[in-house]
Amino acid sequence: MFTLPTYTAPDFAALGNCPDCTFVPAPADGVAPAGYHSTSMFPEYFKVNGSWLLIENSRMDCTAVLRDGAVYAVEFRNLKAGDPVAIGRVDDGSLGIYLHDRGFDMKKGSQADTFAFRLSRSRETGYSSEYATLTQLLRHEKDHGKIVWVMGPACSFDAGARECFAALVRAGYVHGVMAGNALATHDMEGSFLGTALGVNIKTQTPVPMGHYHHLDVINAVRAAGGIKNFVNQGNVTDGIVYECVKKDVPLVLVGSVRDDGPLPEVFGNVYQGQDAMRALISEATTVICMATTLHTIATGNMTPSYRVVDGQVRPLYFYTIDTSEFSVGKLADRGSLSAKSIVTNVQDFLFKLRTNLEA
Amino acid sequence: MFTLPTYTAPDFAALGNCPDCTFVPAPADGVAPAGYHSTSMFPEYFKVNGSWLLIENSRMDCTAVLRDGAVYAVEFRNLKAGDPVAIGRVDDGSLGIYLHDRGFDMKKGSQADTFAFRLSRSRETGYSSEYATLTQLLRHEKDHGKIVWVMGPACSFDAGARECFAALVRAGYVHGVMAGNALATHDMEGSFLGTALGVNIKTQTPVPMGHYHHLDVINAVRAAGGIKNFVNQGNVTDGIVYECVKKDVPLVLVGSVRDDGPLPEVFGNVYQGQDAMRALISEATTVICMATTLHTIATGNMTPSYRVVDGQVRPLYFYTIDTSEFSVGKLADRGSLSAKSIVTNVQDFLFKLRTNLEA
Amino acid sequence: MFTLPTYTAPDFAALGNCPDCTFVPAPADGVAPAGYHSTSMFPEYFKVNGSWLLIENSRMDCTAVLRDGAVYAVEFRNLKAGDPVAIGRVDDGSLGIYLHDRGFDMKKGSQADTFAFRLSRSRETGYSSEYATLTQLLRHEKDHGKIVWVMGPACSFDAGARECFAALVRAGYVHGVMAGNALATHDMEGSFLGTALGVNIKTQTPVPMGHYHHLDVINAVRAAGGIKNFVNQGNVTDGIVYECVKKDVPLVLVGSVRDDGPLPEVFGNVYQGQDAMRALISEATTVICMATTLHTIATGNMTPSYRVVDGQVRPLYFYTIDTSEFSVGKLADRGSLSAKSIVTNVQDFLFKLRTNLEA
Amino acid sequence: MFTLPTYTAPDFAALGNCPDCTFVPAPADGVAPAGYHSTSMFPEYFKVNGSWLLIENSRMDCTAVLRDGAVYAVEFRNLKAGDPVAIGRVDDGSLGIYLHDRGFDMKKGSQADTFAFRLSRSRETGYSSEYATLTQLLRHEKDHGKIVWVMGPACSFDAGARECFAALVRAGYVHGVMAGNALATHDMEGSFLGTALGVNIKTQTPVPMGHYHHLDVINAVRAAGGIKNFVNQGNVTDGIVYECVKKDVPLVLVGSVRDDGPLPEVFGNVYQGQDAMRALISEATTVICMATTLHTIATGNMTPSYRVVDGQVRPLYFYTIDTSEFSVGKLADRGSLSAKSIVTNVQDFLFKLRTNLEA
Repeated sequence: MFTLPTYTAPDFAALGNCPDCTFVPAPADGVAPAGYHSTSMFPEYFKVNGSWLLIENSRMDCTAVLRDGAVYAVEFRNLKAGDPVAIGRVDDGSLGIYLHDRGFDMKKGSQADTFAFRLSRSRETGYSSEYATLTQLLRHEKDHGKIVWVMGPACSFDAGARECFAALVRAGYVHGVMAGNALATHDMEGSFLGTALGVNIKTQTPVPMGHYHHLDVINAVRAAGGIKNFVNQGNVTDGIVYECVKKDVPLVLVGSVRDDGPLPEVFGNVYQGQDAMRALISEATTVICMATTLHTIATGNMTPSYRVVDGQVRPLYFYTIDTSEFSVGKLADRGSLSAKSIVTNVQDFLFKLRTNLEA
Repeated sequence: MFTLPTYTAPDFAALGNCPDCTFVPAPADGVAPAGYHSTSMFPEYFKVNGSWLLIENSRMDCTAVLRDGAVYAVEFRNLKAGDPVAIGRVDDGSLGIYLHDRGFDMKKGSQADTFAFRLSRSRETGYSSEYATLTQLLRHEKDHGKIVWVMGPACSFDAGARECFAALVRAGYVHGVMAGNALATHDMEGSFLGTALGVNIKTQTPVPMGHYHHLDVINAVRAAGGIKNFVNQGNVTDGIVYECVKKDVPLVLVGSVRDDGPLPEVFGNVYQGQDAMRALISEATTVICMATTLHTIATGNMTPSYRVVDGQVRPLYFYTIDTSEFSVGKLADRGSLSAKSIVTNVQDFLFKLRTNLEA
Repeated sequence: MFTLPTYTAPDFAALGNCPDCTFVPAPADGVAPAGYHSTSMFPEYFKVNGSWLLIENSRMDCTAVLRDGAVYAVEFRNLKAGDPVAIGRVDDGSLGIYLHDRGFDMKKGSQADTFAFRLSRSRETGYSSEYATLTQLLRHEKDHGKIVWVMGPACSFDAGARECFAALVRAGYVHGVMAGNALATHDMEGSFLGTALGVNIKTQTPVPMGHYHHLDVINAVRAAGGIKNFVNQGNVTDGIVYECVKKDVPLVLVGSVRDDGPLPEVFGNVYQGQDAMRALISEATTVICMATTLHTIATGNMTPSYRVVDGQVRPLYFYTIDTSEFSVGKLADRGSLSAKSIVTNVQDFLFKLRTNLEA
Repeated sequence: MFTLPTYTAPDFAALGNCPDCTFVPAPADGVAPAGYHSTSMFPEYFKVNGSWLLIENSRMDCTAVLRDGAVYAVEFRNLKAGDPVAIGRVDDGSLGIYLHDRGFDMKKGSQADTFAFRLSRSRETGYSSEYATLTQLLRHEKDHGKIVWVMGPACSFDAGARECFAALVRAGYVHGVMAGNALATHDMEGSFLGTALGVNIKTQTPVPMGHYHHLDVINAVRAAGGIKNFVNQGNVTDGIVYECVKKDVPLVLVGSVRDDGPLPEVFGNVYQGQDAMRALISEATTVICMATTLHTIATGNMTPSYRVVDGQVRPLYFYTIDTSEFSVGKLADRGSLSAKSIVTNVQDFLFKLRTNLEA
């Protein structure tokens, strides 16, 4: 059984006499006033009219804007002229801003403790305990949380990996998927034409004219008017996209400059795409990123270390799975300290995770 | 002295009696007709009214569209309903389509020959001859071609690397730069605040409150109304962006889902961004991609292996510089066979290239 | 059921009239005569007294020495002055030397065919079919071949990986293990002190004074007079070394310049170590190398692409498992073309392989 | 001008009343007594007859043995039965053992300070200041220290890299070289046959029968009776080995299990090889390791963080140059904290270093 660590709110009394936080109007659309405060991934409180308010739906590198008596994390590009923006770069309460990075009880030896260590991860780290913890976590989250998966195209290149992920969707472990154009294209190619980028996903042998396959899939989906139509017309009968469509799992696809196509559902404007991703993340309690540096960092940027569920603050768990230490390390460098990583091939990760969950 | 290999046009007479290529109207916007032909990176000829026409401004993975008596490479997303699209997946002339992948004279021992070998490149490959050839090539291209650079953010993290690239701009070796939001932001941060991501670019020591720096730069540029204003107001006095602005070198910035900000000039819609990049690439004769997998693949996708200059077909040279074999290998896997790569840190690449060019 | 491809011996009649091979005495110990022939990993035949003889127990980069009417592959360092050494660098029969690199019937679609493709392997390759083939192969080899495993220290850093490999030993899938000082030390540390390099192998938490642990293990083994004594005294009760000792599986440990210790059984002289490894390899029909560049290349150098069993020539299968494309690629660069690779973390490889074999 | 940081000896008076260190005889050759103390890379003092003695020629992971009134760091394998071995795993003085890890004055902003920061190094770290410091350091060490280089075979695969290193030898920046069989073989192959592993080191084109070249070089050197003879007979007229022979720079070659050959001077017994390396390191004040994980870790294991020169304790500087973060990170994981790393291709490192030193 997985038990969540409990959260202890700050002892504001111990801070002494703190002033209210100052809010200054944004001078123009998309421009913050001088001295603006930038948010972190930790719980932050702002003193407004004498009360300490926990910021709503936070994420790092945002401004804090007061709207209707609550404080919201707003990206710079989403600021409107006149929005009241929190001022102050000291977060010890003395300016009415308090960052609380030690709210969770990380007793040594407790399950929660396994998330407390900050060891660098490499191909030589032992991951058995990580898999055990993750298995317990996912069983808990299946019914008491929301699990969002972030996936790179490599997840779709192998018949076995597609099948493992499909099983996870069917078993209820997937509450949202975020990816790019390639993941969805190659996954559907696997069912529509039996290949990924023209290579048979079962035998890994290239097929004649296979270099046309991904273009043919995209063209067919565009002709069908979209992914759901294409699936529902029976063109795709298994795989990642198929299971998501059948189970009504939200699928957020955001484009990149290296896309072909794209599929009709793909956000061409990446900032609108970020907004859609953040809307999905705002429900997530566990995020698992697999084999994509681009979308992993994008997601890490917008994912706080905690989530408020039914009025309770709980941790938001964040995993990165990649064969490259450099990729998993990039996230840590950016300050997303609550991230945990497993250095491995995502195909084998999915096989092991599924085997454990079904045991 | 660098001499370009000469191009020999196909011997169409030897093909025998080929029919005209068939063109079929696109059934809807963004949808190609069944059996559409997809372009490659090589010169391709289409027989129209009995004449073989070389496709205009080609790139791979496009449809071939007949407009006003010429054939154009058109991305699927840019197709309009009714556009006449070339049909046929055999390119030996028998369907009126001919792919000419052996047009350049690659005599063994000639300079051109160094581009003909297909050895895999790794950290253990010797690169002296590559540097020598590249140095000669750039001296030639400076006056007789267009050199476009594709740059990842790592190019801006070091004071020396910024200085080397700035020297290349001043000396006339840079006719265009393509990058993302991060490269431009951190480069300007280097001049505006002396840091990149909050780390001093000369001493590599982190500075207090440095995690605000990239946000401060973006906010200041947004307040100034754009990069050119920001530079011309004197906020930035050296570096990559500065030299490009001062020399009127085109700077195409395309966003990604992991961006903060963005800077005002950054394309939020990546497909509009692709169009802008392709417009710049359509003039390029040499492309050098440094330390960015995302933009390198994006550029590789839209860059043919040849360019028509003053009515002559000549090679288009394409280099990738990265510390990761996986990144440089990705391009080859995608069929961009004319690419050459150097596995190294881009900082040292720029130092050596500058030293060679100034020798 | 796994079926071996059949071997077709050369059609020597078709070669016409070939002379006997010339053998010239080695001028000194460890020195080959001018024009010596160097062996490859393929079957090679030498004409002696009018008969074509298949070289005995071949490996690449050796001289071919005639002794007692048979031809042996002898390392340069093992040559004795006066040894008759085969002369000739053409291997088409015209000098009495014939290299037969197409002896196996690689029909498309046959199981054997999966070993015939020469695609580069990366983290993005799909490996499901590889695992399926390997599972079938190991079930066959368990009773009809010899499986030798080459292991880096990372195999011992995780409790789960140790357990998986131990299960393979118990089930009869391990006929020999080759490794270095570190693998054996850290594996025994795991049972003796519960750690590897001082980190708990179950929880991955560092323990106090853990940096003494590997030294303590080595010191205790030295005091006990060797690994077998140490195990049989009850100091080690599970793991890789334990199971090998209990099952009398040969364990060949060869030292390296970065060793601490070493354990008493470790070969300090690496060339004597090579001889011991080659003796073990001379019985092997399948070799699986995991997470060690050094020992993988060492083994690859001495492993031919075939093995003679009961007078029949059969393939010798060679696998490399590593998270690094560079490491798995090194082997291919060295000419060991029959090697197949899986880019993944060896812990997950062992879990999946064991699960498949027990299914 | 480079100035060394000054060393402040421990204030033993402040430690209060410490007992003498206990020494217990080794129970057998190569076996330490229970509770033995293991050395670190920092200065350690042992109290003997009431006096604190700095250990002689230390290195980590050794026993501390009292001989003739001085304390020596002795590898376990070199212990003799009866050797008096220091006992105690607490190093705060209370057991007569004191580890002094803060002896150097690391004032912020001083040159020495650049060695104090413990930031992780990656391909995205800016290295300009590192090159500047290293250039100043080498100019200082040329006359006032000893610079030992540790080199992997990649240093010999490129004509330019060989030339750069040769220039450093000629200019007096090289007081010792440590490597394996491959570096020396391929470097001499470059002069003897114009290739490395059969590939032309100037043009990087493979030559016919090139796979014989490294064997031919080794065979010729063995026939000549050794490297010096081979060079002095005029077979080798440039490169790394040539310059070392001509300048009488010590060249310590230690074998590995993956060697062909080997060359006659190569240590077959790696532990004898370690002793020879340690003898060379015992004079070193700066160590630079390039493109070899194996020899870098071997050297790191035996290299302390300080050196006593003319009775003064000074830092021993240790650099690692490699394209792989994993390789440069391995050293840090092993506790060699004074190591600094540059993630780049060693060819470009050597070019830049030479250019800077000659400027």
